[in-house]
Amino acid sequence: MADEAESVFVGIDVGGTNTGAGMVDAEGRLLATVKKRTETSDGDALVRQLAEMVRELLTIRSAKAAFPSSPETGALRAVGVGIPGFLDARRGVVRHAANLPLRDFPLADRLGALLGAPVILDNDVRMYAYGEAAVGAAAGYDDALVVTVGTGLAAAVVHRGRLLTGGDLAGEIGHVKVDGNEYACGCGMSGCLETLVSAGGIVRQAKELMRWKPSVLGEWFPERPKAGRLQAERSMTAEDVARAADLGDAVAAEVFEQTGRALGSTLAACAALLGTDVMVIGGGVSRAGERLLSPVRRALSERLHPLHSERLKVTAARWTDEAGVIGSALAAKERGGHTV
Amino acid sequence: MADEAESVFVGIDVGGTNTGAGMVDAEGRLLATVKKRTETSDGDALVRQLAEMVRELLTIRSAKAAFPSSPETGALRAVGVGIPGFLDARRGVVRHAANLPLRDFPLADRLGALLGAPVILDNDVRMYAYGEAAVGAAAGYDDALVVTVGTGLAAAVVHRGRLLTGGDLAGEIGHVKVDGNEYACGCGMSGCLETLVSAGGIVRQAKELMRWKPSVLGEWFPERPKAGRLQAERSMTAEDVARAADLGDAVAAEVFEQTGRALGSTLAACAALLGTDVMVIGGGVSRAGERLLSPVRRALSERLHPLHSERLKVTAARWTDEAGVIGSALAAKERGGHTV
Repeated sequence: MADEAESVFVGIDVGGTNTGAGMVDAEGRLLATVKKRTETSDGDALVRQLAEMVRELLTIRSAKAAFPSSPETGALRAVGVGIPGFLDARRGVVRHAANLPLRDFPLADRLGALLGAPVILDNDVRMYAYGEAAVGAAAGYDDALVVTVGTGLAAAVVHRGRLLTGGDLAGEIGHVKVDGNEYACGCGMSGCLETLVSAGGIVRQAKELMRWKPSVLGEWFPERPKAGRLQAERSMTAEDVARAADLGDAVAAEVFEQTGRALGSTLAACAALLGTDVMVIGGGVSRAGERLLSPVRRALSERLHPLHSERLKVTAARWTDEAGVIGSALAAKERGGHTV
Repeated sequence: MADEAESVFVGIDVGGTNTGAGMVDAEGRLLATVKKRTETSDGDALVRQLAEMVRELLTIRSAKAAFPSSPETGALRAVGVGIPGFLDARRGVVRHAANLPLRDFPLADRLGALLGAPVILDNDVRMYAYGEAAVGAAAGYDDALVVTVGTGLAAAVVHRGRLLTGGDLAGEIGHVKVDGNEYACGCGMSGCLETLVSAGGIVRQAKELMRWKPSVLGEWFPERPKAGRLQAERSMTAEDVARAADLGDAVAAEVFEQTGRALGSTLAACAALLGTDVMVIGGGVSRAGERLLSPVRRALSERLHPLHSERLKVTAARWTDEAGVIGSALAAKERGGHTV
């Protein structure tokens, strides 16, 4: 029987478009990864695809190289799956997942049966937060708040290396209404924080400000093409706004200032309640770096007692996609892995 | 040796003025209490007083009656002490406590040596929250947020019956700055939530509004006594404002509306982050009941997604003083009590 050092854990980050899987050792070192377009025809087909990805990881060369003493590969101890949507994590059931063919689907049991290993399930943002807490920017801190800003906005709390798993609505900070914001949100409400703090929110704010102020974004993405010019071939993205900010564009700078401030102001009370030591900002929009982080810091230090704000670190996530995979694997190790 | 059923645990709630102690059984039933004026001459004198109170509890009649099979009383398993101030809870050291002669004082070790039982230490608000979670208004809920509104304002998080103990600054929601508030705070900042949401904050807001609007409070507490009338013999309290609200006074009603809204608005993001099921409001000001709770609920339902706000219960604490004592005792049972 393989000893503890040869145990491996697989984490899977299921997305509406792509799904990544990675194999880690007991220390959280990433040994191999694989990525596929997500199978969305039905739940059973998705489960077969996930099982296939796990088997692929277990047999690829890089894994073998890491475990020379093992005849085939390390022994699979547990699998963790991160899913965007409403879950019953304790029972391993996906209640509803956006853009995935899963409704009240017992994913953990089905995948576990195919693999002969325990499978645990959790929200993708919580898995990501756990990865950042274990081997990322939140590692070594007692109280971390991990925020992901991408298509949506969500957060998770890590306390002394353990993920605080609240009810199925925990982490949904994107749908808190903020003062002075009236944008309609996809959730049916208006004024949600996510209508500002998200990739779409950044574009929305830029388009609004462009109506009143000159901006290079207006040249790149003219609302009505000028004579002799072509209509922009694609829609504006948050990356475009970041690029404009880099060129010193005042509108783009103001958009990031508003976005960071909205996030920092809303999370100040959370940080005070939890005694947060580090706030880690990940997700696609975090690639904007200091443009986003600086106003978050300013808003927090205006609202928190200096004793707290002076020691509260606000930093970008270490990982982009990998934290979700590593976090899923390590959560499986903690909650579902057998010890030898 | 006494069996498990006869074990008792003592909780002590040390205040700047009075100190309460209570003895509970393993189920958290309060068997006896004792209350004294806090000994504030020095740390050792305070420790001797606390030990004396514990011994008193162990020998009083009500305790004996509860344990007829025991020759003397139940066997003391552990003691929990709640202290207002900055603590190093892990080491059992009081770093600094307002109105108490304790600075870097190893209270847990000193008291433990006198009693021959393990002593654990924690912040008084967290102990109170733990009591409400175990045997009070938050009992049976997965995710509770317990807020105390009294001289100050603080909060604690309970997750599945376990207290989330953050760093030494955790829970200090009173010193989060809120928009549109410029009152100076005792902490050195201005605009802190506590300058509105506290006993003093309620009086402060009432005095401000009385300058512009007629109020029965102006008759009870005239700024300058009218001819033939005496100056009010005492200062206005939050209870007076509550009494005025009961009489339909518009100023008093507006004060509670503002206070509850400020609290609910600030905590909305916390509730969303944690997936809070129940928000329990305790402390002296919570005696104002629905006058305070209704605007908290309104502010929360304006800011949270209906899926969440419709199931989030906002309720007054079950206990006033006793939750601190019971919570301290039960925290001692969980963290410090030997099992037989």
